Amino acid sequence: MSLLPPVVERTIESFEKLPGIGPKSAQRLVFYLLHMPKEEIERFAARLIALKSGTTRCSVCQTITDTDPCSICGNGRRDHSLICVVEQPTDILSIEKTGAYSGVYHVLHGVIDPLNNIGPEQIFIDALLARIKNAVPPVREIIFALNSNMEGEATIMYIQKQFTVHSSEQTVKVTRLAHGLPMGGDIEYADEVTLKRALEGRREY
Amino acid sequence: MSLLPPVVERTIESFEKLPGIGPKSAQRLVFYLLHMPKEEIERFAARLIALKSGTTRCSVCQTITDTDPCSICGNGRRDHSLICVVEQPTDILSIEKTGAYSGVYHVLHGVIDPLNNIGPEQIFIDALLARIKNAVPPVREIIFALNSNMEGEATIMYIQKQFTVHSSEQTVKVTRLAHGLPMGGDIEYADEVTLKRALEGRREY
Repeated sequence: MSLLPPVVERTIESFEKLPGIGPKSAQRLVFYLLHMPKEEIERFAARLIALKSGTTRCSVCQTITDTDPCSICGNGRRDHSLICVVEQPTDILSIEKTGAYSGVYHVLHGVIDPLNNIGPEQIFIDALLARIKNAVPPVREIIFALNSNMEGEATIMYIQKQFTVHSSEQTVKVTRLAHGLPMGGDIEYADEVTLKRALEGRREY
Repeated sequence: MSLLPPVVERTIESFEKLPGIGPKSAQRLVFYLLHMPKEEIERFAARLIALKSGTTRCSVCQTITDTDPCSICGNGRRDHSLICVVEQPTDILSIEKTGAYSGVYHVLHGVIDPLNNIGPEQIFIDALLARIKNAVPPVREIIFALNSNMEGEATIMYIQKQFTVHSSEQTVKVTRLAHGLPMGGDIEYADEVTLKRALEGRREY
């Protein structure tokens, strides 16, 4: 016997499908919503519905946008010969906030992850390769800004391999973000791998 | 300049209003939703809209329900002379799971919290007092199952005071959940207040 009205149970189920939200959090969110004014819930629902219809993918970099090309790809003052490859559109926000990057982006919308059935064809690798091949002006450098885990490394390796196969005539520099100590981080508390990378990547003053 | 489409920004704002969801989590949830099939988002939105219209408050115990009275208040086999006072409908679920309670409930939908402008009239205290006054058969015992913080204590004190004012002719037992060591809890790691309560509440074998 269930003690909750079916509509409450179903909304809890919908929230549980979201990442990082377990059964208890979902329950808490739904009961919070039940105390919200009807108009606010309806506004929330309308925004959810508009989420897909009000957005599109940029045909150049594949980010989520409301204009095609997106504001970065359509910006003539950005360096279009420099492509930073990221996993998610949100990574673009993080990099833009640094103010230190003037190139363009390419969003893979995921990384190769065989355990979760995500192969190269499920993410936008072909679009990246085609883009590099047909780029005018030619692409000068590709910066990989993927998370440094197994899946990220595998994705970089796969793309690099495809890249050497397809673009024997081009000379494109391939780089990746530096690993090292985070700013303000104590050497004492750094893990060995990070410290090893920081040593390997040491720079002259 | 914003890099996100307005509809994405607005949906992030809606998620940020929910408890326990900060700007980063909201962003993550919205980008997760952007990858979900359109139908699933629409189903989610429809459930949100149905949340208010598909539910009501039980006129007896004030819990969120789809039938009035709710399944517990309408159940003739429950002990209606025993009322357990809780803060939220979800607390009923937790207590029902124990299988150790056969009485009925009363949901306050909050506790007295002057710092957040929640006074006695914002929660269902009057409904509780009226219910006790007019109960047939008369109420035998009130069990307070509120969280043991300042607000919970203040609410219990306020209700008890109202109760002695209004019900001089009735003899209603007022109890509260026992405090003590959680099952499996180490004495070594128990805080002093809990340990003090456990000592005070000791029971004979």
